[in-house]
Amino acid sequence: MCGIVGVYGHSEAANITYLGLHALQHRGQEAAGIVTSDGDKFHLSKREGLVGDAFSRGELEGLPGHLAIGHVRYSTAGDSSLRNAQPFAVEYAHGSLAVAHNGNLVNAAELRRRLEMDGSIFQSSTDSEVIVHLLARGREPDIETRIVNALRQVEGAYSLVFLAESKLIAARDPRGFRPLLLGRLKDAFVFASESVAFDLIEAEFIREVEPGEVVVVDAKGLRSFKPWTEESKRFCVFEHVYFARPDSFIDGRSVYRVRMQLGATLAKEHPVEADVVVPVPDSGTAAAIGFARASGIPYDQGLIRSHYVGRTFIEPQQSIRHFGVKLKLNAVRDVVSGKRVVIIDDSIVRGTTSRKIVKMIRNAGAKEVHVRISSPPTTHPCFYGIDTPTRSELIASSHTPDEIARYITCDSLGYLSRDGMMDAVASAGPPQSGKALPGASYCDACFTGHYPIEFKPGTISSLKRVVN
Amino acid sequence: MCGIVGVYGHSEAANITYLGLHALQHRGQEAAGIVTSDGDKFHLSKREGLVGDAFSRGELEGLPGHLAIGHVRYSTAGDSSLRNAQPFAVEYAHGSLAVAHNGNLVNAAELRRRLEMDGSIFQSSTDSEVIVHLLARGREPDIETRIVNALRQVEGAYSLVFLAESKLIAARDPRGFRPLLLGRLKDAFVFASESVAFDLIEAEFIREVEPGEVVVVDAKGLRSFKPWTEESKRFCVFEHVYFARPDSFIDGRSVYRVRMQLGATLAKEHPVEADVVVPVPDSGTAAAIGFARASGIPYDQGLIRSHYVGRTFIEPQQSIRHFGVKLKLNAVRDVVSGKRVVIIDDSIVRGTTSRKIVKMIRNAGAKEVHVRISSPPTTHPCFYGIDTPTRSELIASSHTPDEIARYITCDSLGYLSRDGMMDAVASAGPPQSGKALPGASYCDACFTGHYPIEFKPGTISSLKRVVN
Amino acid sequence: MCGIVGVYGHSEAANITYLGLHALQHRGQEAAGIVTSDGDKFHLSKREGLVGDAFSRGELEGLPGHLAIGHVRYSTAGDSSLRNAQPFAVEYAHGSLAVAHNGNLVNAAELRRRLEMDGSIFQSSTDSEVIVHLLARGREPDIETRIVNALRQVEGAYSLVFLAESKLIAARDPRGFRPLLLGRLKDAFVFASESVAFDLIEAEFIREVEPGEVVVVDAKGLRSFKPWTEESKRFCVFEHVYFARPDSFIDGRSVYRVRMQLGATLAKEHPVEADVVVPVPDSGTAAAIGFARASGIPYDQGLIRSHYVGRTFIEPQQSIRHFGVKLKLNAVRDVVSGKRVVIIDDSIVRGTTSRKIVKMIRNAGAKEVHVRISSPPTTHPCFYGIDTPTRSELIASSHTPDEIARYITCDSLGYLSRDGMMDAVASAGPPQSGKALPGASYCDACFTGHYPIEFKPGTISSLKRVVN
Amino acid sequence: MCGIVGVYGHSEAANITYLGLHALQHRGQEAAGIVTSDGDKFHLSKREGLVGDAFSRGELEGLPGHLAIGHVRYSTAGDSSLRNAQPFAVEYAHGSLAVAHNGNLVNAAELRRRLEMDGSIFQSSTDSEVIVHLLARGREPDIETRIVNALRQVEGAYSLVFLAESKLIAARDPRGFRPLLLGRLKDAFVFASESVAFDLIEAEFIREVEPGEVVVVDAKGLRSFKPWTEESKRFCVFEHVYFARPDSFIDGRSVYRVRMQLGATLAKEHPVEADVVVPVPDSGTAAAIGFARASGIPYDQGLIRSHYVGRTFIEPQQSIRHFGVKLKLNAVRDVVSGKRVVIIDDSIVRGTTSRKIVKMIRNAGAKEVHVRISSPPTTHPCFYGIDTPTRSELIASSHTPDEIARYITCDSLGYLSRDGMMDAVASAGPPQSGKALPGASYCDACFTGHYPIEFKPGTISSLKRVVN
Repeated sequence: MCGIVGVYGHSEAANITYLGLHALQHRGQEAAGIVTSDGDKFHLSKREGLVGDAFSRGELEGLPGHLAIGHVRYSTAGDSSLRNAQPFAVEYAHGSLAVAHNGNLVNAAELRRRLEMDGSIFQSSTDSEVIVHLLARGREPDIETRIVNALRQVEGAYSLVFLAESKLIAARDPRGFRPLLLGRLKDAFVFASESVAFDLIEAEFIREVEPGEVVVVDAKGLRSFKPWTEESKRFCVFEHVYFARPDSFIDGRSVYRVRMQLGATLAKEHPVEADVVVPVPDSGTAAAIGFARASGIPYDQGLIRSHYVGRTFIEPQQSIRHFGVKLKLNAVRDVVSGKRVVIIDDSIVRGTTSRKIVKMIRNAGAKEVHVRISSPPTTHPCFYGIDTPTRSELIASSHTPDEIARYITCDSLGYLSRDGMMDAVASAGPPQSGKALPGASYCDACFTGHYPIEFKPGTISSLKRVVN
Repeated sequence: MCGIVGVYGHSEAANITYLGLHALQHRGQEAAGIVTSDGDKFHLSKREGLVGDAFSRGELEGLPGHLAIGHVRYSTAGDSSLRNAQPFAVEYAHGSLAVAHNGNLVNAAELRRRLEMDGSIFQSSTDSEVIVHLLARGREPDIETRIVNALRQVEGAYSLVFLAESKLIAARDPRGFRPLLLGRLKDAFVFASESVAFDLIEAEFIREVEPGEVVVVDAKGLRSFKPWTEESKRFCVFEHVYFARPDSFIDGRSVYRVRMQLGATLAKEHPVEADVVVPVPDSGTAAAIGFARASGIPYDQGLIRSHYVGRTFIEPQQSIRHFGVKLKLNAVRDVVSGKRVVIIDDSIVRGTTSRKIVKMIRNAGAKEVHVRISSPPTTHPCFYGIDTPTRSELIASSHTPDEIARYITCDSLGYLSRDGMMDAVASAGPPQSGKALPGASYCDACFTGHYPIEFKPGTISSLKRVVN
Repeated sequence: MCGIVGVYGHSEAANITYLGLHALQHRGQEAAGIVTSDGDKFHLSKREGLVGDAFSRGELEGLPGHLAIGHVRYSTAGDSSLRNAQPFAVEYAHGSLAVAHNGNLVNAAELRRRLEMDGSIFQSSTDSEVIVHLLARGREPDIETRIVNALRQVEGAYSLVFLAESKLIAARDPRGFRPLLLGRLKDAFVFASESVAFDLIEAEFIREVEPGEVVVVDAKGLRSFKPWTEESKRFCVFEHVYFARPDSFIDGRSVYRVRMQLGATLAKEHPVEADVVVPVPDSGTAAAIGFARASGIPYDQGLIRSHYVGRTFIEPQQSIRHFGVKLKLNAVRDVVSGKRVVIIDDSIVRGTTSRKIVKMIRNAGAKEVHVRISSPPTTHPCFYGIDTPTRSELIASSHTPDEIARYITCDSLGYLSRDGMMDAVASAGPPQSGKALPGASYCDACFTGHYPIEFKPGTISSLKRVVN
Repeated sequence: MCGIVGVYGHSEAANITYLGLHALQHRGQEAAGIVTSDGDKFHLSKREGLVGDAFSRGELEGLPGHLAIGHVRYSTAGDSSLRNAQPFAVEYAHGSLAVAHNGNLVNAAELRRRLEMDGSIFQSSTDSEVIVHLLARGREPDIETRIVNALRQVEGAYSLVFLAESKLIAARDPRGFRPLLLGRLKDAFVFASESVAFDLIEAEFIREVEPGEVVVVDAKGLRSFKPWTEESKRFCVFEHVYFARPDSFIDGRSVYRVRMQLGATLAKEHPVEADVVVPVPDSGTAAAIGFARASGIPYDQGLIRSHYVGRTFIEPQQSIRHFGVKLKLNAVRDVVSGKRVVIIDDSIVRGTTSRKIVKMIRNAGAKEVHVRISSPPTTHPCFYGIDTPTRSELIASSHTPDEIARYITCDSLGYLSRDGMMDAVASAGPPQSGKALPGASYCDACFTGHYPIEFKPGTISSLKRVVN
């Protein structure tokens, strides 16, 4: 659950990367980092916090060079953030190297154990450091080969941008779990996790980096190769359901369009007599519009989201409690009072938030509250880069929809079916242009437990002994 | 353009005030302040920035007492903010006094000149300091009388909360330009600029403080009086159009409902053949829904607003420029591409932002772009507390709608008429309950130039000589 | 216990003031402030902390103008520092005014009460605000007269610099408790509390501002007058004993020379058989050298003072305690081990520090520890600007030297006599040049209780009700 | 030019380390770091700046455990400080490891190149990271053997403390360039660069860690071994001349006593007719006292050092320039005016500071200014851990004392001879107790160019390509 950006050949590579990261901010709010190369030397800045807070003008000016990679990192509790912030930059036998990673390796712990036995020392608990160690042990003269040989040893989900003194290399795992797009900004090549980054920097979208593809950009131009045997594609369907921005195109499809379609299918699968359709903003908005159109029930923005809820807000600790959801959302009494309300949300994780939202809508005078979820029950954790809680915390892993409905106190609850979801995604295409990712099929492990790659027991976190 | 909160009789008065200010954050982002009284001593904290940034847990814990008032201040360029941050707290012959003010006095400069001639010294350029000086010169033994006599001398817009050692006093000018509401939280009385503050702190709305009313809360309970001759009401219509939060009730009306009504009327006044209605989020959303329903054209969220645009974002200064609007908004290509799009916004100030939005929609592939504004042309500055630019900067003060349409490059432009606006507001009632403000009529000076109170030349700022 | 600086006629008035305050940093570490005038407008910056921390380059650049006054403030516990930081700047009928004050008024509380009865409001608990209110009530057209009439009403100790748009005025009370010097830097006139400020800015010392003198500098040049009836001089002897820097000339005498003389006289009054004379650095150093020369006992720097003890040091709170003195001082074992040691200090306040120093010297192996104090027992609090504790906390107010010696566990204790002190001061002159302050005699109230001006009961602090 | 601390077996190991580092602050002001072990996990905090600024109470409380090591780092210009701050902590095959290093390896660049060829990646440009890599490649089961085998490969100066989960290991290179002492605090063992750290934490000094010794402390207690063939000792004489604190014992000798002896010998080698001996505080103080006693010329503190010169002071950039020395030092006019003054300093590096001091003393009225230096001319850079400039910047490498005297504009200049220095050091013993370091002889390469270990060309800095 991170966002990455790469720039080759722009005199303001750091600024472009900074803006690109700003557009990808929803993919990670814990820390932000940029590494540039001036062709000879690297320049690095990493900070905790949002992109806008992390970089002052002075820091950006201290990042010269026409190559850059950047990273925004998602908050994972209890983990010293700055040490694990990316890009990860080092010196090794062949010079300097930096990497930014979106995804999760399933055999990182095993690889790390092996590397340590061979004398490697580790300073972070990131998968990226494992990749860099593998790469550093390669004796091949060209970095492309070293990267390919290093990645041959890893399994799991990775969309990566590597920076060398005068080369930018992008790579995506053979199943293509996480998105990675290629664009062009005048003479420069740019890479980013979502197309919204290109919108902001006014770059032209060229195509997705394909699953299993390695793209190299250097003084000779751009070239690409596919060093691995082809695997069936497994693009993350949850990017469409929740994670990506609605104004992004990923996987050749408009996220907004997919979500509307999810809502429309949901309306067919779980019809309800009601007076108003209300989204949980902002992730439920497009699905709610789709639901409203398909059902003919009017759409209204009956929940208002505050723009001012950030990381620094202090909840007073005494008698006033549990403001979490109320600080962020408030019901529009005039919209819901006396009405039969359908609430549209993308998913239910622990159920506590949904329960508070239902209560809030009732307190504002709703006669009935029906909850419709634009994806199937989330029953399994993700091992490929989305920070879902463990199975035991996922309410749907141990409770039926009826039980969940009772817990969140709604009058009825409907989840979109797995097939309904897949049909909706498919029908949101055909992709707008010929540039789409061919033959995309999806990873739905979080809804089904069908993991495309087995997870090797022993996470890096479980290995971690050092350095809090 | 500020927000105020007052609390009497709660053991966590500072925390309640803090949360109330958080809910009113949209009314002022420059500075936030809280003053509490423990019955004997005052405790004060004021900081620049958002409420969540301004107060740490330690600062809130340093604000004991069961009485409190708070203030959020709007950013006015070039003005040393902390010096002018409110509440304004002083010691005088009768003890301690603090005040928080929403509104603008029209004779502040004149009063200040007179006070200075009598030996007063000033430390800020706020109207509030003028009020406190007037009050301090009163020799009446009770503070209610001193307040009434002080306010008798001022003209203009004021919604005020005063704090004395063991008293809370709220006052609203006879025309009632700015809102002020009274609520109850268990045994405590609370005042706030908008009802959303009550929603968050779970207080019960009792009624609006009426224009011309002074409400005193102390150990003897709550009492109220109307010391001034009645004036015709002049509630600010722009609160409904743009300024207040859509989930607020003010003036006895749901802001969301009013805005929907404005949109519906706008659809009737300025119909258009189109494929999709797109709001400029978030202030245009309710009006767009109203427009869509009245016109039958589908509503879609074709502009996505970033949650991460704050005061600290640094725009790189070199070749990449003019990111202002793009950082905040992005078009959903799939929604607008190949379509005839109606953009709904609440107002046009200088025209530069609208021009960029039209361009953004066109770049995303729209065939036609029609702009509809849910209020009349903004032709005159506000002297009663909204921070509009001077007349010469208001594009509508010197240009016809046709000229404006040409400037912002839209295919057609329609403004809601003055009467349409007033009808829409009226029809959004009858107010939901018997508690509504009786006989409200509206100030529309920013659209008509009919100022209910004449402005006295010589602003305090123009007087200002000292202390940058 | 503050330091003040004033500059008239220098293109970098803020920078000069900043450097002058840096040289006076020992007179106040709590807060620092500068106000400049560009002839028309004032510019103000005040911050908590040391001068070097308080002002960034940007802040200094934001202080244009060729007139400036500045202030460093001593830390007084429990007092919100920034609110009380100086200079105090306001607007009033005649324009803008700022003031910086070193000293303490004895009738401030009474004056404040009277002003409040007349309608004044107060924002700080400083004496300076009282002076400004008095001044603002004056109706005389020229500021000099307003200042004189205001000061006519105050009693106590004051060395003041006032800033108006294009005038700088310095004033010193008729007894001259606190120092104030006049110097010249090319075409500019400068004022400062001690001559070390002139050394740093390379200004030439002209003369002291005389007790009872008001000096005005404006476009017409410098002029001076003495509006009050002459009083006998009462320069603070404790400035020489402890407070001023040893490299300063004040009162026409070298502080270093005075301290050496105090040490020499002390050696005569309280001789002792010993092997080494050790100062408590830095205030005891010159006296120890004087003692060593007079007694023939070798001088050694047997206590080393850390350069790194500042306000931010956190003392761990658990088992390791009472590091206060040890963090600041350490004994040189080789100097004191096996020796009979004479410790020279300037004064004993509560006795706790002296007790720890004696223990430290003994732990380092000293055979005997004799303490000699270069002033008489401190028995009374100062009401004229030195922040001594209340009488009950002054160990010498209730204990004999013998009892004190027992408490601090030294082998013998000797205080300089009152007459010895006065003779020493006198003999350290005749003042080096003809520029000295004529007829100086001294205030010794802290040693004798003979207060030159009676203190009016009711301090401003005791009046304080508001605003923590 | 760093300071290190290690603690084994104290419930407040972080607090003890923090205080120890505070006492060693003069050895490094750029950055400070502490790593603790709670027996299972490491906890780390590193910050730029002084110890007191670097650690808040919260940070110290976040460092639990009864083992700790700490480090203060000297500022080397142009080097990203936090990345190179120590201790350096990693995970490797055998668990967790941290190290703090005082000294400089002469073959670090060569080792690093070799390690990189074998696949190591580097994140800093410190020698410590080289040591950790060597150690991590060891396959021996016990850490003592891995440390010995790693150190067998390095050449140069090192005093080291290593931290493993439940072990503390100290090591000192066979020549013993940098000091390292062992002490006891109740049941805990402590290590520190100088004895002043023990004074502050009230630990008992046991003995120096001997050159070539490795000391291991764990649950089984303390044990020691000397795995290397013995080398002739080369303790750094410049620690005595300038670097260590005067209240420290290192190398079995009192630094204060050594400096007095240097001053006494200097008086004999370079006698002068003069009226007063003035030290450049604080490093010249003890030598000046020695000079004064040997010569019979009175000692006076004619230069006063400001306590408030820190890293944050901003020098105004315009007309007022070159305040460097004046901000720090000021002459006492009364001491030097009309006098023949002998200035005592420990060394002359570039000559610019000495030149300013001579000028300052003359401006204060001195008739003659004679400079005496308590060490020989500094002609060669140090490769063993003192941050001296390159040869070309050392004025004495290309100028005779006569030329230097002319440059700094003094009336006469005398340097202590090499033999005089060595005799003085020797005569400052015999060491106070039987605990002294046996057979110490000294490295004087900076005065003679006789380097005990040859420097291998190619520094790590020259290798550095990455990561600014």
